[in-house]
Amino acid sequence: MTAAARYGDPAAVLAVVNDVLNLQLGHRSVRKFGSREVTDDELAALVAAAQSAPTSSNLQPWSVVAVRDPARKARLAGLAGDQAFVAQAPLFLVWVADLGRARRLAARADREVAAADYLETTIIGFVDTALAAQNAVVAAASLGLGSVFVGAIRNRPDEVAAELRLPPHTVATFGLAVGTPDPTERAGVKPRLPQAAVLHREQYDAVVADAHIASYDEILSAYNARFGLSGNWSDRVLARLRGPASMAGRHRLREILERLGLPSR
Amino acid sequence: MTAAARYGDPAAVLAVVNDVLNLQLGHRSVRKFGSREVTDDELAALVAAAQSAPTSSNLQPWSVVAVRDPARKARLAGLAGDQAFVAQAPLFLVWVADLGRARRLAARADREVAAADYLETTIIGFVDTALAAQNAVVAAASLGLGSVFVGAIRNRPDEVAAELRLPPHTVATFGLAVGTPDPTERAGVKPRLPQAAVLHREQYDAVVADAHIASYDEILSAYNARFGLSGNWSDRVLARLRGPASMAGRHRLREILERLGLPSR
Repeated sequence: MTAAARYGDPAAVLAVVNDVLNLQLGHRSVRKFGSREVTDDELAALVAAAQSAPTSSNLQPWSVVAVRDPARKARLAGLAGDQAFVAQAPLFLVWVADLGRARRLAARADREVAAADYLETTIIGFVDTALAAQNAVVAAASLGLGSVFVGAIRNRPDEVAAELRLPPHTVATFGLAVGTPDPTERAGVKPRLPQAAVLHREQYDAVVADAHIASYDEILSAYNARFGLSGNWSDRVLARLRGPASMAGRHRLREILERLGLPSR
Repeated sequence: MTAAARYGDPAAVLAVVNDVLNLQLGHRSVRKFGSREVTDDELAALVAAAQSAPTSSNLQPWSVVAVRDPARKARLAGLAGDQAFVAQAPLFLVWVADLGRARRLAARADREVAAADYLETTIIGFVDTALAAQNAVVAAASLGLGSVFVGAIRNRPDEVAAELRLPPHTVATFGLAVGTPDPTERAGVKPRLPQAAVLHREQYDAVVADAHIASYDEILSAYNARFGLSGNWSDRVLARLRGPASMAGRHRLREILERLGLPSR
């Protein structure tokens, strides 16, 4: 895969390339899957890759629930914004930010873990879960498997917790649908912002960075049009962040986290 | 790299292997670097890999500041728990959860982005930054570069923001020190929890999962002893999460985020 496709810009070239970079640059979301199962051996490889990601102070504050049961996948699809591909994927991984393991350790040892009451620790949970899951995404791609993250699993986290019998002090952070890509899916490599819009040297310069948004808006507008969609990047960002009504219930996340035992002190 | 090293267990074997998995399984933190610079071409490749990671609704809510100036690296090292390797690394990347770009878009268009006031959106910022940064870690490894995350950049986020001139609605989430590994560093692949402790099938089972912690404690205790360190995994988790005093100032994160323009509504 080329940098030109990644940036939607024929002039974009990387001077350094190798197979791993090509695999990463070629990433796209896969939402239509072939019927082949993801084997248990493949699942073990994905989890080993995930566990190999860095984790703050070796806390390993995450777990993953592998869902294959069609009825359960269908229920999770319903909880996650009625997205049919969640049920269609042979394997649905639910990544769990897990402070429960440490809390249970503490309970058995009759010790305090008051740091777990703070937003910082919850964020470590989310961040370390994300580092792990991204390693699984790359590992999946290396095995010829496609995937897509499902943030909508946070639309109704308490119901997801009940479905997966998640214990206290844990929360489903996002799902990952995994399977072999169906070649008939109409989808492409989505162009990203030019590097100059996100990479700063020594200090952040908003004026220089934001000057690249107009050209990206044109690139995204053309890309969206290829798939029958309207709007440029700025339009879509503004629509997505308009307010609570654009959040599919997730504006309640702080209150739900509190209820699940992940307070934001 | 073998699964046996990753799990500190000679019996751990993966039936599926390839070069990408081997690269991931062999990950270790590198905190001692050779003198060779990380080239601009390599930096461009790391950023392209990072940008190729998935991002929620294509929001791309992150930026990265590449710091090479020795004086600035030294100041950042001081702000991040006085960790000398931050200054010693030829390249220090500060990964920034960036809702500022969208807020500036909204200001220019005279539109509201009230969703950005909610914890959910801040968490999207942290998660998407982490997905991107982990791709950079893997890309770096593929280029023979070592790296280590520096969560201590969150010890004093407001001072880091001033040093990097970060605009409102952005926060440094973590640093990443990058360079060629110095082969004289005494460090190894740190064993992780057995898969059975983190991987659940269909539903979470805490009793089954936690039953694997005792054997892991023995493995980690032996691993730590090799490096002259005491304690097993459980001891270290409990110490790390004991309370605010074990958080190096990060118990104030929620209040600081509020001040930086990332409220946790």
